[in-house]
Amino acid sequence: MRVRNKPWAKDKLSSYPQYVIENPADHKGKWNQVFGNDNPIHIEVGTGKGRFITEMAKANPTINYIGIELFDSVIVSALDRIIEAEIPNIKLLNVNAVNLREYFAKSDVDRLYLNFSDPWPKKRHEKRRLTYKTFLHLYEDILVDGGEIHFKTDNRGLFEYSLRSFSEYGLLLTFVSLDLHNSDFEGNIMTEYEEKFSLMGQPIYRSEVKFQNQK
Amino acid sequence: MRVRNKPWAKDKLSSYPQYVIENPADHKGKWNQVFGNDNPIHIEVGTGKGRFITEMAKANPTINYIGIELFDSVIVSALDRIIEAEIPNIKLLNVNAVNLREYFAKSDVDRLYLNFSDPWPKKRHEKRRLTYKTFLHLYEDILVDGGEIHFKTDNRGLFEYSLRSFSEYGLLLTFVSLDLHNSDFEGNIMTEYEEKFSLMGQPIYRSEVKFQNQK
Ligand SMILES: C[S@@+](CC[C@H](N)C(=O)[O-])C[C@H]1O[C@@H](n2cnc3c(N)ncnc32)[C@H](O)[C@@H]1O
Ligand SMILES: C[S@@+](CC[C@H](N)C(=O)[O-])C[C@H]1O[C@@H](n2cnc3c(N)ncnc32)[C@H](O)[C@@H]1O
Repeated sequence: MRVRNKPWAKDKLSSYPQYVIENPADHKGKWNQVFGNDNPIHIEVGTGKGRFITEMAKANPTINYIGIELFDSVIVSALDRIIEAEIPNIKLLNVNAVNLREYFAKSDVDRLYLNFSDPWPKKRHEKRRLTYKTFLHLYEDILVDGGEIHFKTDNRGLFEYSLRSFSEYGLLLTFVSLDLHNSDFEGNIMTEYEEKFSLMGQPIYRSEVKFQNQK
Repeated sequence: MRVRNKPWAKDKLSSYPQYVIENPADHKGKWNQVFGNDNPIHIEVGTGKGRFITEMAKANPTINYIGIELFDSVIVSALDRIIEAEIPNIKLLNVNAVNLREYFAKSDVDRLYLNFSDPWPKKRHEKRRLTYKTFLHLYEDILVDGGEIHFKTDNRGLFEYSLRSFSEYGLLLTFVSLDLHNSDFEGNIMTEYEEKFSLMGQPIYRSEVKFQNQK
């Protein structure tokens, strides 16, 4: 993602503590208090400008959403959408996902979304891919038993890699589409990247995998 | 596959007992005697006209191949290729793969190929798909431990289904390509169907899965 420098972004994020959680580690194990209810919590890692998670939050008011994004200059666009639509069931974290264990205890999270994650095509960058085994381990440590990862991408190499990585980790593949926009999948909500790449004619790949008890 | 009636096919197959094995159950557990050596045995289920398996046999003289095909009028074309090129390391079985256990003992087979298997798209025909769990069980019962299934198809629905079926069965996905002809995979040998469908612009899907010891 091309990241424009927005010197005011950090300040703007701090001005909306009801949406942007400044010290997420304080809420580890008690995110239900942050939302004021016991609804399930779905997080997205690499939220970008937030179209997907804000539309999901509007469509599913009884689910709580947390968007996680490294860059303040990008996540600030997600904040704008939330302010605009006054969406109550969504929070944003401007943090690095490698530290997820600091912010979430086991079973804090019911589902995890990965959308159009950076592909890191070079073999020597494999460890940076958000579907590398160390990340899967991280996700397992914060998800409920039987929790799912829902993953979309236009990047063939990343999708092929991820299917192998999921299998190697022992995850159960419960859904796979190799051309989401020409399938009978209903209720798809597009991300910014998804719109861009599907307009270029790329098929969109999508999978759902589940952490099994046997592990 | 459109099957033309060839009343002479059965007779022709019987005339070449060195290539077409009439009573495969007689060789269960001792296929090495049929080939006269201890080389590994790779079988293809649904061989059709035999381009793939005959080319594989020519390219890999230290592997023994067995092509399995239900229709005599189709497999007779595979026989023509073998006669023509006098290929020593290949045998044909004109039988139904549902009876594989009658012909092969555990560990008789080192690898199993499925190429462009009939898709059976209707949900009520799921059990007929050659990647349905009962077939995977059959393959497991004749393959060596750690044996692999190599599977190619142009059919998106069948490939999606098969990836799920493999995962559910506990098979390890060790290779996957979502566009074989635009990948760096080397030494691909095309089947008759593969040539036809790739010329129509369809991407070719390919996977390798492995039976794991833990099962
Ligand atoms: C290619 S963009 C996709 C954005 C959005 N999901 C979409 O589909 O339009 C990937 C995003 O993931 C973010 N990202 C990558 N690694 C991250 C990490 N370790 N923690 C948090 N965000 C990350 C990047 O900053 C970038 O905004
Ligand atoms: C769609 S064709 C593909 C042929 C060839 N593999 C290719 O790629 O060109 C599928 C073939 O599998 C054979 N077949 C299907 N079910 C079978 C079974 N149970 N036992 C043996 N052959 C079978 C069919 O007769 C047909 O020739």
